[in-house]
Amino acid sequence: MKYPLGFYSFGKNIGIKDASLDFAVIYSDVRCQAAAVFTRNNFPGAPIYVGRDHIKDGYLQAIVINSKNSNVATGEKGIQDSYQICETLANSLGIKKEDILPSSTGVIGVPLPIEKILTACSNAKENLKPGNLDEVAEAIMTTDTKKKISYRTISHEGKEGVMFGIAKGAGMIEPNMATMLSYILCDYLPESNNLNGILKHVVDQTYNCITIDSDTSTSDTVVLMCSGKLGSIPDDQFESTLNEIATELSKKIARDGEGASKLIELTVTKGRDENQVTKIGKSILNSPLVKTAIYGGDPNWGRFIMAIGKVFDEPIPYDHLEIQLGGISVKGANNETKSKLAEYLKSNEEIFITVELNTGNIQKTFWSCDFTEGYIQENAYYTT
Amino acid sequence: MKYPLGFYSFGKNIGIKDASLDFAVIYSDVRCQAAAVFTRNNFPGAPIYVGRDHIKDGYLQAIVINSKNSNVATGEKGIQDSYQICETLANSLGIKKEDILPSSTGVIGVPLPIEKILTACSNAKENLKPGNLDEVAEAIMTTDTKKKISYRTISHEGKEGVMFGIAKGAGMIEPNMATMLSYILCDYLPESNNLNGILKHVVDQTYNCITIDSDTSTSDTVVLMCSGKLGSIPDDQFESTLNEIATELSKKIARDGEGASKLIELTVTKGRDENQVTKIGKSILNSPLVKTAIYGGDPNWGRFIMAIGKVFDEPIPYDHLEIQLGGISVKGANNETKSKLAEYLKSNEEIFITVELNTGNIQKTFWSCDFTEGYIQENAYYTT
Repeated sequence: MKYPLGFYSFGKNIGIKDASLDFAVIYSDVRCQAAAVFTRNNFPGAPIYVGRDHIKDGYLQAIVINSKNSNVATGEKGIQDSYQICETLANSLGIKKEDILPSSTGVIGVPLPIEKILTACSNAKENLKPGNLDEVAEAIMTTDTKKKISYRTISHEGKEGVMFGIAKGAGMIEPNMATMLSYILCDYLPESNNLNGILKHVVDQTYNCITIDSDTSTSDTVVLMCSGKLGSIPDDQFESTLNEIATELSKKIARDGEGASKLIELTVTKGRDENQVTKIGKSILNSPLVKTAIYGGDPNWGRFIMAIGKVFDEPIPYDHLEIQLGGISVKGANNETKSKLAEYLKSNEEIFITVELNTGNIQKTFWSCDFTEGYIQENAYYTT
Repeated sequence: MKYPLGFYSFGKNIGIKDASLDFAVIYSDVRCQAAAVFTRNNFPGAPIYVGRDHIKDGYLQAIVINSKNSNVATGEKGIQDSYQICETLANSLGIKKEDILPSSTGVIGVPLPIEKILTACSNAKENLKPGNLDEVAEAIMTTDTKKKISYRTISHEGKEGVMFGIAKGAGMIEPNMATMLSYILCDYLPESNNLNGILKHVVDQTYNCITIDSDTSTSDTVVLMCSGKLGSIPDDQFESTLNEIATELSKKIARDGEGASKLIELTVTKGRDENQVTKIGKSILNSPLVKTAIYGGDPNWGRFIMAIGKVFDEPIPYDHLEIQLGGISVKGANNETKSKLAEYLKSNEEIFITVELNTGNIQKTFWSCDFTEGYIQENAYYTT
């Protein structure tokens, strides 16, 4: 595994819940240009308030994350806790507290075990190892079943840099943006220094295009940190690399949705504009009836019609609508076609759907997963 | 069971799928003043087109319904089938075809077995029995586990009339309006003759306040038929009786949601306006994470916060927000309160939730059910 230059990190169990890793720090030995995108939920977690405050100047030097507790709906005390975490870690690392972005993920509405976290912050410096970001990817997991990592090497003028991304997801994944925490680190900068614009554009095409269950987390955070140790690369090279990593992480999140057995990739084509395409894409992928049919291998194509038709303010001409599952056209399918569709759904773990609206020229791809008994079981007894 | 005067009906198996009743006719021996509300799905079933056409003049004399096949996404042929059903039945009953409203419910995208249905229409007259609406309630079921019937006697100036309602629901239940078919028959008229206005107002407070799974059927239909055989009653008496019946049927639909083990009644109070209250009510009751927590008896109150907060365009002041489950205040619940909440959820089949927004004076009640493995199982293998 290759890491970007100058980043150090660790993941650790500090006893917030059980024996697994539940605390992590990422540190850069220089101040980084940085950008972040946060949840639009109206009750964001305390770390979101603090993160928005600390990212204002466009710089970060460290990220501190705990899992198992999201520090959401914990009032003024929760916000003070997040500030205190940054302050304690800043003292340990010898950096400015305003250059630290805090994240918490896990159960809502329970006060942070702040003493344990502050102790871990005080001892952070001695635990840091070069790179080591796969350990962080493990420490930030909650109901995820797998670590989510994606990285690319970047060749430019004879030098080789690295962009490295990690993420966690699993449930409560819907825009804007899709849940999760995701951190992307790079030793290059884009030439324009326009990290915000590039990150926002990429997030709109990737993390904002995944949905597990239509619920929107109160903790969603994507952070981009660039040390610039290797200098700058052209914006398009930077953005395409970022897009590749964000796409790969997004698909990993969708595939690992709670209880999921299949990854669904939906491309809506020939739409009027991004708004129409997105509303219809989300309506299909958030439909419990579509998702259960895909799980069961039921070629119940009428449910796609229903899901497109329930976007009341975007009526689509039925005659020109074209829907394909795995390249098989479904509208008006006869028994033979339905057998083929059932076979396609049952024998594949990646289901490809295309929906052609024929109202314009806009195309966008979305990811989700099927809906299984596992989702119910996992979420019926989450905190107890 | 008491039936309104002059109504005749039957339910029958005509071999559309299996041995259960799958066809029904309701007939009045006089033309009735009538009103109807239909699905807002942009791909409504063929019977919706025909029903809208036939209800235009405000009169109906019969309703014809088949279950097991919704005649949706069946193109021009489907619409011609629906018209032909009305024509054949009209000939058998000796009434105008424009006074018949057709309904179909069941699987989408499969052509109607039209010959079987036309034969049944030809023989309809000899099968009719006075009243007998409970048989119709059985014939219109699809994934429903129980017949849904509600009726009230109406005393007015020494006479006693009856308002009688039946419904089917179970899945794909969301506004506007909630799925289902529902037929309400009465031997009184409201004095104003404003059946449309009264029905629409009642539907907004009842059927439009239930949600099973956020999916919106392509076949939703509520029909009100008044023979006026007993004359007229004051509008408020008529509307309050209609409201009682529609509320009872709505709750029966929610309680019998696919796989449901609990009925959830949510009252949102002190909202700014109907729009705000409805968006937030629906966001809570459509949240898979709220519904699974209620199923599992998990006192995960933060999910209510999340669901209210994901209505991006309706931010609510957190401090004034009050949420109660079974009268127990949940915000910031400690371990003792959480035990009480878990006990409340686990030991009750009807869960009462109140959410106080403190943004105004509007109040509205909504109904739904919990989300269980049964929903997944029922819908993963629906058509196969």
